Amino acid sequence: MALVVQKYGGSSVADANSVKRVAKRIAEAKRAGNDVVVVVSAMGDTTDELLDLAAQITPLPPQRELDILLTAGERISMSLLAMAITNLGVKAKSFTGQQAGVITDAVHGRARIVDVVPSRIRETIEKGQVAIVAGFQGVNTDTNDVTTLGRGGSDTTAVAIAAGLGADVCEIYTDVDGVFTADPRIVPTARKIDRVTYEEMLELAASGAKVLALRSVEYARRYAVPVHVRSSFSHATGTLVTGTYGNPIDPNAPAGDPGTDKEAAVEAPIISGVAHDRSEAKITVVGVPDVPGMAARIFEVVAAAGANIDMIVQNVSAAHTGLTDISFTLPEGDGPVTMAALKAVQGEIRYESLQFDDQIGKLSLIGAGMKSHPGVSAKLFAALRDAGINIEMISTSEIRISVVTRADSLDDAVRAVHSAFGLDSTEGEAVVYAGTGR
Amino acid sequence: MALVVQKYGGSSVADANSVKRVAKRIAEAKRAGNDVVVVVSAMGDTTDELLDLAAQITPLPPQRELDILLTAGERISMSLLAMAITNLGVKAKSFTGQQAGVITDAVHGRARIVDVVPSRIRETIEKGQVAIVAGFQGVNTDTNDVTTLGRGGSDTTAVAIAAGLGADVCEIYTDVDGVFTADPRIVPTARKIDRVTYEEMLELAASGAKVLALRSVEYARRYAVPVHVRSSFSHATGTLVTGTYGNPIDPNAPAGDPGTDKEAAVEAPIISGVAHDRSEAKITVVGVPDVPGMAARIFEVVAAAGANIDMIVQNVSAAHTGLTDISFTLPEGDGPVTMAALKAVQGEIRYESLQFDDQIGKLSLIGAGMKSHPGVSAKLFAALRDAGINIEMISTSEIRISVVTRADSLDDAVRAVHSAFGLDSTEGEAVVYAGTGR
Repeated sequence: MALVVQKYGGSSVADANSVKRVAKRIAEAKRAGNDVVVVVSAMGDTTDELLDLAAQITPLPPQRELDILLTAGERISMSLLAMAITNLGVKAKSFTGQQAGVITDAVHGRARIVDVVPSRIRETIEKGQVAIVAGFQGVNTDTNDVTTLGRGGSDTTAVAIAAGLGADVCEIYTDVDGVFTADPRIVPTARKIDRVTYEEMLELAASGAKVLALRSVEYARRYAVPVHVRSSFSHATGTLVTGTYGNPIDPNAPAGDPGTDKEAAVEAPIISGVAHDRSEAKITVVGVPDVPGMAARIFEVVAAAGANIDMIVQNVSAAHTGLTDISFTLPEGDGPVTMAALKAVQGEIRYESLQFDDQIGKLSLIGAGMKSHPGVSAKLFAALRDAGINIEMISTSEIRISVVTRADSLDDAVRAVHSAFGLDSTEGEAVVYAGTGR
Repeated sequence: MALVVQKYGGSSVADANSVKRVAKRIAEAKRAGNDVVVVVSAMGDTTDELLDLAAQITPLPPQRELDILLTAGERISMSLLAMAITNLGVKAKSFTGQQAGVITDAVHGRARIVDVVPSRIRETIEKGQVAIVAGFQGVNTDTNDVTTLGRGGSDTTAVAIAAGLGADVCEIYTDVDGVFTADPRIVPTARKIDRVTYEEMLELAASGAKVLALRSVEYARRYAVPVHVRSSFSHATGTLVTGTYGNPIDPNAPAGDPGTDKEAAVEAPIISGVAHDRSEAKITVVGVPDVPGMAARIFEVVAAAGANIDMIVQNVSAAHTGLTDISFTLPEGDGPVTMAALKAVQGEIRYESLQFDDQIGKLSLIGAGMKSHPGVSAKLFAALRDAGINIEMISTSEIRISVVTRADSLDDAVRAVHSAFGLDSTEGEAVVYAGTGR
């Protein structure tokens, strides 16, 4: 008997029929002898509809009120799900983030979980009942105000509740079969990955893989929560995210059985997958005087504007001018405010001009095995060269190499690299890919 | 400067534009120098839509979960209203029933308020901000579970919050101009009543007037909260419900000014109004042995079935048979279960047969002045006789006379009585009546 935390996203509970389908699955896991705690997102497009209502009222809603508004979404889905499970003869109770003991800081709209005190959840499972918890929301106990965790917050709620309860596994149910070696809409031969480490999953999530929210992976790594990403439309084993590579998971493992021997590490594959990201833009500060402190000043200004920068390239300064160009990438949405902040200090920094480029794409090759395998970068660059694709920026970590290309050659780049590293599926059949993952 | 509690129903906040319109009205009251606390219902049909969702899941949802589901409705309206007020430059914060300190018993679906601890509301108004409170909901502090108060619960929330804060007035905003001498859809010459006592309003509400929920009037009477029923579509003075008749209210009184001198009682009008009710049915137990205890036994059975009976008539027993008939009225919806319960004891009570009649109407004449004016009943019966209307049952209280007629002569009966007691408007113009009142 295992203690399983299951998380279902909005697309899994989009309407009454989906809620009933998910309820059956939960009742099965419970009847199989598991203790089951379920974290659920708002139904389908509810959150967007509520945001739209707020936009009809005011362009700038107070964040505290926006959080109250949005948390209505999970209230609806969690109570319906509890009703549907009860209707199947399995007792279930739903709990808001506050009732479930999800304590956060006071940053409305993107609060961070600071503690989980799941005493009511524990009571509920001790009574043999299923506990349903609202994802995405918590409470700031200083003010007793409701907070939300931001996009992907339900994944984080699930992992945090799993950590707080010491659950055996946190199952993230989605509409794809797991984490893939690349986006199958771009690479039809992409394979499902059986296992990845937290570190690889972090790099994948940070590099554009959307199946699991980055913060939830960070939380899982910190508390060593085994995460099983799997489809709510099949019983197939998905992708297990853990600290080490263990035995291959049993493809027939029932819900709640991560099928892993955490101690039995086998050699890691060199490459886990190829991620891509089209959501970034590039700003180039042209003609910056190449004197000490100028780059620091530029990035002070950018940080003050609230932008999260990703990759940075500084050209070698041209000797005869003493001027250099500094380029960096950032989320496209942070572009306007960052450009404005830089424009405001042109007189101080005395650069020549600013360029904004939202036609870039980023490809990232990720794998814990690349640490001990030389030549991975060379092979990557050769594959892109052979495909006729120009590299504009490069950055690396211990287990990741990222390159920036033109946006319109990104798909070709992903296919070329996926193939060059032998990631293509060897099975004759096409991989079925059911959607975007969130 | 007054402390005003304003309550807006679902039709007043049916969409984003209505929310903005109500926000303007609240901001006006605040800017006029009042402390303002607002109680709001769920938007338009939200509650019915949520009930429909639940019905798609299961025919018998657990009440605890149904309460969680339904309270999502006020969460949406209250946060949107707070946003709209803030957008007008007036600071506003919204609070759930729990946050507002509305403590109830544990009876999900029709909880009763046992205490109001409005410390957060008080803090908010002391900061000069408008507090928005979710109507219809509370918290049972034993379990920390959310409860709902049942239909009309938002009126009760408003009066309870007003009592808890010691507010100067509780304004119930609706889509009609106040309480009328009769339903203007039936009696076009009906007049708005300027003032009624709690007792009269209780009788009016219990007799079918729908503008104010019965429980809220009971609460207002217990805590002596002046209630002002008025239209959210005009600035006209509505109907003031208080303990005594004071000076006439100033028709130009701004929001928040009940315009009353509570001590200055003038002579009460004999009749306040004519209420009618089509929602009851009549059960007749035919041929009951006229021996002691039989009536008691019948009403024990009816009470055990959960029916709220209203009027009772027992025929004089026919001497040669020793049998009598017992008739009583009850809410039509309670009919089937009550009939079944009575059927089950036919062998024990040995009555001859049961009759169910849902084609009845009830007319009630209400007025505190009738206590000291003899002849009111005689005048009522004469008016009905002159209009050719047969009376089937009669019941009276100190300030009310009710008669049961055929449903299809009820409208004529109301018009005849309204006219006989001189209630028709003497103004040349037709009274505009904007809707059904809730």
